[in-house]
Amino acid sequence: MSESHQTPKTRARPHGIPGNERICTFSDGVFAIAITLLVLELQVPDQAPAGGLIELLPGYLPKLTGHVITFAILGIYWVAHHNMFTYVRWHDRVLLWLNILFLLFVAAMPFLTALIARYGDDQTAVVAYAGALMMAGLSLELMWWYATTDHRLVAPGLDPKLISLWHRRILLAPAAYLLAIGLSFISITATKGLFLCIAVAYIAPNPWDRYHHQQFPE
Amino acid sequence: MSESHQTPKTRARPHGIPGNERICTFSDGVFAIAITLLVLELQVPDQAPAGGLIELLPGYLPKLTGHVITFAILGIYWVAHHNMFTYVRWHDRVLLWLNILFLLFVAAMPFLTALIARYGDDQTAVVAYAGALMMAGLSLELMWWYATTDHRLVAPGLDPKLISLWHRRILLAPAAYLLAIGLSFISITATKGLFLCIAVAYIAPNPWDRYHHQQFPE
Amino acid sequence: MSESHQTPKTRARPHGIPGNERICTFSDGVFAIAITLLVLELQVPDQAPAGGLIELLPGYLPKLTGHVITFAILGIYWVAHHNMFTYVRWHDRVLLWLNILFLLFVAAMPFLTALIARYGDDQTAVVAYAGALMMAGLSLELMWWYATTDHRLVAPGLDPKLISLWHRRILLAPAAYLLAIGLSFISITATKGLFLCIAVAYIAPNPWDRYHHQQFPE
Amino acid sequence: MSESHQTPKTRARPHGIPGNERICTFSDGVFAIAITLLVLELQVPDQAPAGGLIELLPGYLPKLTGHVITFAILGIYWVAHHNMFTYVRWHDRVLLWLNILFLLFVAAMPFLTALIARYGDDQTAVVAYAGALMMAGLSLELMWWYATTDHRLVAPGLDPKLISLWHRRILLAPAAYLLAIGLSFISITATKGLFLCIAVAYIAPNPWDRYHHQQFPE
Repeated sequence: MSESHQTPKTRARPHGIPGNERICTFSDGVFAIAITLLVLELQVPDQAPAGGLIELLPGYLPKLTGHVITFAILGIYWVAHHNMFTYVRWHDRVLLWLNILFLLFVAAMPFLTALIARYGDDQTAVVAYAGALMMAGLSLELMWWYATTDHRLVAPGLDPKLISLWHRRILLAPAAYLLAIGLSFISITATKGLFLCIAVAYIAPNPWDRYHHQQFPE
Repeated sequence: MSESHQTPKTRARPHGIPGNERICTFSDGVFAIAITLLVLELQVPDQAPAGGLIELLPGYLPKLTGHVITFAILGIYWVAHHNMFTYVRWHDRVLLWLNILFLLFVAAMPFLTALIARYGDDQTAVVAYAGALMMAGLSLELMWWYATTDHRLVAPGLDPKLISLWHRRILLAPAAYLLAIGLSFISITATKGLFLCIAVAYIAPNPWDRYHHQQFPE
Repeated sequence: MSESHQTPKTRARPHGIPGNERICTFSDGVFAIAITLLVLELQVPDQAPAGGLIELLPGYLPKLTGHVITFAILGIYWVAHHNMFTYVRWHDRVLLWLNILFLLFVAAMPFLTALIARYGDDQTAVVAYAGALMMAGLSLELMWWYATTDHRLVAPGLDPKLISLWHRRILLAPAAYLLAIGLSFISITATKGLFLCIAVAYIAPNPWDRYHHQQFPE
Repeated sequence: MSESHQTPKTRARPHGIPGNERICTFSDGVFAIAITLLVLELQVPDQAPAGGLIELLPGYLPKLTGHVITFAILGIYWVAHHNMFTYVRWHDRVLLWLNILFLLFVAAMPFLTALIARYGDDQTAVVAYAGALMMAGLSLELMWWYATTDHRLVAPGLDPKLISLWHRRILLAPAAYLLAIGLSFISITATKGLFLCIAVAYIAPNPWDRYHHQQFPE
């Protein structure tokens, strides 16, 4: 990791307890369960129509699309958490609790996805879904802000430019979900389209990631 | 870790088997599942009222509050377990079983939360909820007592003052839950308020944690 | 670990691939989920009687006892797997598959516990429960036999006396569950009593564990 | 690991970020949950017949067989993922997402197994089951292709013969599942027989594994 951008504010060593293995194991567990429980919403039909299950497929398509989009959104947050913890290498009590706050919203997604799958035209369901994702993004930003302020829990030499690029990248999601909440007053369908766009935008390659990769030179 | 407070009782090396990784992985798994299964209790309604799901919100609020409080309480126990195992670095058969006893009560929380969410005015539900949390706290205390007595499974130089501060901090919870059980004979509402207070008290910053952090000097 | 009992059959280095972390993470995950899903069988009652939930308690007691016994039995197998993998430190394809066979029976326990909780007087339910536990024990024995034969996947100097003591300890469980299957033809109640005895016998301290602990001298 | 087959195309060091622990923890979590949730499909019957549960056994046999086969198939993919990540020791953003794509199909298996268990004669259910397994296999192949092309994320000296043997071994499964989809137009029973054959073929010992084991010489 580049240690060349030390600023006067930088401490010789972060304030915190080394070893974040259990934060990661616990968070990976919550993510793995939340992402796998999504499948429970794809309920096996009680009865097959005369022409076979294939006749149910058109009715299942919105459910399936919602399943894949939520899977992708949880994947995005897992990737973000994973990448963040390649930099955050110490912890303290505050970080543990910010992480638990983040997991509260991650763990709520199977319920909210089931809600939106069943009541897809209901604005409350859409707002709850977007609201939880917005809060997850804000919790993640709080963690990054807390860990990097004064280089509290990251390597002293961590590039300030990478820190600020990450702030912008993390904050983009809550901003987009806030926009989605506003949009839901106009059109539920457009709001759902926005969810898809946010997912695609975060999965697509982007310049921020080049910075991430450059921290681990060949 | 400070090795300066060696007492005459201290052994040169703890009696035990090194490597607690799997105890932590297994416990993190149980915590992650229990905390994520809580969401199953927030059942998707069978039918939306004419005015949309928003009309169900007031009825959902107690359920949601209970969900967040139990999430926080499980978070508190996870943080306590996590912090304890920064000191407990050896294990033996007794510790494995005390940990499984602790997990028995942790794993019971999704059931007990569903019970209290559905039958919130029933004293049995409230007593069962408080009782399981009291037993979880007592199991945790048993682990700490077993591991630190004669410095059996912790570093020989572990500060005796930190050991006794932790005893008090861990025991506060079972004492408070015992009080909650007593209070449930007078007022169920007051008992639930007490659950909230216990959660807030443990999440708030406190002098015990300063001791914890001082064990990992900059 | 004692390296002093090398026998002529001992190889200089085990045949196998180093690093069993993922076998342990995967197995810990299956155990954590199976042990936490047990709680789903303790279904929240659909309706509270006039006198409150307390009136349902006598009817719940057998269910609760079964829950705690299965929790303890899964705990016993987890402890056995945990201890075994302090010695088995290499793996090959055969070991991976024997472990998956073992997990097949572990993962079946929530279903079998729900079956026995609901149809406690049905011999088929009792035989299926005992049969799965017998097969779990036999799979574990197969793993130990495979790993230690010719010191294939354990340290070359592993004490042969410890190996044979462990064989006996692991095999005791399948033998006891076979006895339980036989006993089920005479008395279902006695069979359930035997399940409790097996659990107590394995949790109680025993001379085998002294050998285990002696491998990690102070 | 053999470092002797360096080709001119080989870089001195892979392009990527070291440390794949969390990819493995997260994937192990999804596998552990998916494989344990399979058991939920083995629903406890609502009522026992007059002659006891034993009378239900013949009707349960297809469900039980399906359960064991899916357990084995998920085991095969876990073993493949496990073995692949003994070689893939760096990661980048693309690998993270290919892995999440792979997990999407793994996590779908409990739903698809429940579907096929309930509607075993429905071609759509059989095609969905085979299709998800085909996609899982193709995702795995994409990961191997991406990681090994130009030795991007594997050790520079990794034997090219092992790389190409693995390509063939991984691709065999999607090819077989594609065949199964075709066969489902002729006979559903034959298709199910093919699922069993694929599982047996992958679990049986094979020359590819000798290559795998030879990378870790005694």
